[in-house]
Amino acid sequence: MRQFRLPLRPLSAANFSVQSSTVEKEVAAPAPELEQSSQKPKLQQEKDRVITPRSQDFNAWYLDIIANAELADYGPVRGTMVIRPYGYAIWEAIQDILNVKFKETGHSNMYFPQFIPYSFIEKEASHVEGFSPELALVTIGGGKELEEKLVVRPTSETIVNHMFTQWIHSYRDLPLMINQWANVTRWEMRTKPFVRTLEFLWQEGHTAHATPEEAEKEALQMIDVYTKFAFEQAAIPVIAGRKSKVETFAGASRTYTIEAMMGDRKALQAGTSHNLGQNFSRAFGTQFTDENGQRQHVWQTSWAISTRFIGGIIMTHGDDAGLMLPPNLAPVQVIVVPIWKKADERTGVLDAASSVKQTLQAAGIKVKIDDSEQRTPGWKFNFWEMKGVPLRIEIGPRDVSNGSVVVSRRDIPGKQGKVFGISMESSTLVAYIKGKLDEVQSSLLERAISFRDSNIVDVCSYSELKEAIAQGKWARGPWSASDEEELKVKEETGATIRCFPFEQPQGTKKCLMTGNPADEVALFAKSY
Amino acid sequence: MRQFRLPLRPLSAANFSVQSSTVEKEVAAPAPELEQSSQKPKLQQEKDRVITPRSQDFNAWYLDIIANAELADYGPVRGTMVIRPYGYAIWEAIQDILNVKFKETGHSNMYFPQFIPYSFIEKEASHVEGFSPELALVTIGGGKELEEKLVVRPTSETIVNHMFTQWIHSYRDLPLMINQWANVTRWEMRTKPFVRTLEFLWQEGHTAHATPEEAEKEALQMIDVYTKFAFEQAAIPVIAGRKSKVETFAGASRTYTIEAMMGDRKALQAGTSHNLGQNFSRAFGTQFTDENGQRQHVWQTSWAISTRFIGGIIMTHGDDAGLMLPPNLAPVQVIVVPIWKKADERTGVLDAASSVKQTLQAAGIKVKIDDSEQRTPGWKFNFWEMKGVPLRIEIGPRDVSNGSVVVSRRDIPGKQGKVFGISMESSTLVAYIKGKLDEVQSSLLERAISFRDSNIVDVCSYSELKEAIAQGKWARGPWSASDEEELKVKEETGATIRCFPFEQPQGTKKCLMTGNPADEVALFAKSY
Repeated sequence: MRQFRLPLRPLSAANFSVQSSTVEKEVAAPAPELEQSSQKPKLQQEKDRVITPRSQDFNAWYLDIIANAELADYGPVRGTMVIRPYGYAIWEAIQDILNVKFKETGHSNMYFPQFIPYSFIEKEASHVEGFSPELALVTIGGGKELEEKLVVRPTSETIVNHMFTQWIHSYRDLPLMINQWANVTRWEMRTKPFVRTLEFLWQEGHTAHATPEEAEKEALQMIDVYTKFAFEQAAIPVIAGRKSKVETFAGASRTYTIEAMMGDRKALQAGTSHNLGQNFSRAFGTQFTDENGQRQHVWQTSWAISTRFIGGIIMTHGDDAGLMLPPNLAPVQVIVVPIWKKADERTGVLDAASSVKQTLQAAGIKVKIDDSEQRTPGWKFNFWEMKGVPLRIEIGPRDVSNGSVVVSRRDIPGKQGKVFGISMESSTLVAYIKGKLDEVQSSLLERAISFRDSNIVDVCSYSELKEAIAQGKWARGPWSASDEEELKVKEETGATIRCFPFEQPQGTKKCLMTGNPADEVALFAKSY
Repeated sequence: MRQFRLPLRPLSAANFSVQSSTVEKEVAAPAPELEQSSQKPKLQQEKDRVITPRSQDFNAWYLDIIANAELADYGPVRGTMVIRPYGYAIWEAIQDILNVKFKETGHSNMYFPQFIPYSFIEKEASHVEGFSPELALVTIGGGKELEEKLVVRPTSETIVNHMFTQWIHSYRDLPLMINQWANVTRWEMRTKPFVRTLEFLWQEGHTAHATPEEAEKEALQMIDVYTKFAFEQAAIPVIAGRKSKVETFAGASRTYTIEAMMGDRKALQAGTSHNLGQNFSRAFGTQFTDENGQRQHVWQTSWAISTRFIGGIIMTHGDDAGLMLPPNLAPVQVIVVPIWKKADERTGVLDAASSVKQTLQAAGIKVKIDDSEQRTPGWKFNFWEMKGVPLRIEIGPRDVSNGSVVVSRRDIPGKQGKVFGISMESSTLVAYIKGKLDEVQSSLLERAISFRDSNIVDVCSYSELKEAIAQGKWARGPWSASDEEELKVKEETGATIRCFPFEQPQGTKKCLMTGNPADEVALFAKSY
């Protein structure tokens, strides 16, 4: 029943394989006193790597990371995904931050049923056209054929409107602003873990307003919340803008989007906010009595971010060595690796490591200690680098006697990212580590910005656009051509309009396709 | 498509109806300067009440609370429920507390797909027998008939085991301890909001262990987590114990339960923890290699608490006036009601109210201010009492000049629960309110304990049991009779064995039914 499969990695010379590490453990002899050394584990480190280098095969690299870092696994039903604890912890971090923002902006969480009568989906014309090919339908319940088929929620605009008609009566009930964290199902044919799965987790905000201006303001406010989140927390320099008519959400009047450039330079739509106008309120009769006693249809928005965002984080920051997590969303921000050679050094090193852990934990830093005795330090370095942990603290016998530790950055490999002699003294260490986490966070964002900017080409003609896309880059150029011409670009180049960015260049513009005057530049790219 | 319906309450003389308050708002004139008084609003208060008194009709009272306190509403599909913000906030409070406990006890959150191949359900004999009548089946996906029907998750033991076989290899992979927060679907015929709905929210923990002793210890640990949560946070004095064989979970070797006595003296199963033995691991081949190199099936547990718990809170603590929430789980712990008569008093009173709110909020207290000008103080008192807010602070012009406030307890009606002249001074007020919240929390638990204990009768014979049950009470008596005799009791009295309580009386016992020696007393009751 599976469509995608994790590649089974062969066991490496160093007998390393996270996927089958447990099999290997079975045959491992009781933990030997390993000859360990913090000096030059580099060659061993290279050997221990098992994920496909990103530079070699981006897709294989992506799937390797997901398997080896234990982010997710395949469910038994084609296209479904099991989100494993390390991957789910990233989702929890996303939830914690966004939940606060949603509440600050006046939204309340609630929960709508996931079963929607089939007739609801048919009420809004473009909505049914957009979603009907992707529906999962419940036809049997409690052993009996159902009178009406039930749709397993692909999105909730229809059922939300059904309920809003019962809760909204007068202008005093507006704005009504809610959000739900939920699972959704879309019967996708081409699936890829996190990026596009048959079932995924998301939040969906739904609001109703008395005026079109308020709805527009809300839709813009929420795409702004997403944009700030992407920049500040995920270190992803998304480009925010408006979707073309062709790419607008099925049922929306206007769709705003944040578009992220992945490491292979394909675009990922990382979040959307829709101004639904009165499309659903007219279909469902969601009305209110205004201040003059007139009945009016409400103006609505909806907006969502999903577990796809985790795919975006992987593909924005990862490198040949594996995952690289922004500190603000990392389940483990600091990994402590104690290192000793002789038996009599063990206790001192472990005690120091444990005390360092407690110090950092008390300061609210997410820290973990890897004191397993079956692995070499080199193996551990590789493993936690592959898991994307932003900072590593090494503590050896010499460090213990000096009262100091060694700190390595995930984002700067080798000696350059390594600083010796950081004092273990509580306040010094905490300040140093917090500062370094901030540095890594900023550095990831800066790197992603410069990668993004060096891969966007300003184009003035269709031939320039084609050339840019052929080089794997994004093309930005003035556009006022028709929907048909937009579809032609897609057909001929594989690229679509990702958005008309909010940030627009000054001056008069001529459409790259027709030469007619154009109000805006559009951003074209191949996408996930 | 609906099975249960909220009773539509007639508009009362005072024109109060939460359900249709918004309708009423439409016709309300612009906010009048109301003649307000904090003195003796009692008669008006009585008049403003619209929910059916609990003493009159328990079920109608329950549904009235859910509608009027805006806890939930009915979904468009029979038996489904929309959890509204005030109800969902209680669920969030439950989640926040339990999540910490689950992590403290070593469990990680993750997420399993909700679609389960039908063949999985059939693998464990008693599981399929227990669940097959309640399944919702997806038979169409992406416009096509599916080759294999998919079950919409009624519980996840089967898919969890399918995945565990891929993650568990050696004893070093054990214990494996995970939890998920998810929606589940059971095609129930008799539904009731929160208590039994077609779709509900829950957490389900799943663990795998190397030995039966460890699994048993885990199952007991988690029922203990639930028991403490019920007592300490929900103020529900549950009775924890073991289910009879007849009442054991479909697929479990042993089921532990917490049973709560509702206000109508019916029992509510509020949480369960199952020792699954090797039932699922044998059905799915979930094996590990032990320290001696032998292949063994793992020993498992699963445990769950659901949105049903919210029903338990309503039915344990509520009274004729409405909901009564334990402070530890209340979305609003303190409601501030500013009261003024003359226009020139308005600003002073509102400023004081707002400053009190900020003081309490800064201290981590969940506080809300009701400064709407369309309602009388009496209406507001009733409304927030009906919503179950533990404490009310009243601030009038005299209070402002005295620098003090009036504090009323939800659990003690009228003058007895009212204290005048509490200083507004920040530290005094915070300490006082925190102390009062603790008092209300304890008082709710004590009251529930004495209600519970006065409604459990110790019985020595079947006729005594029948008499106790006929009186609406719970019967506790020695039991060692057969499953058939247990079913006979159910048929003849409507009562079932809720559990064999962990706390057992000393001394020799004779089975109330057969007169044979009995090891334990069982607890019999009618239940939800």
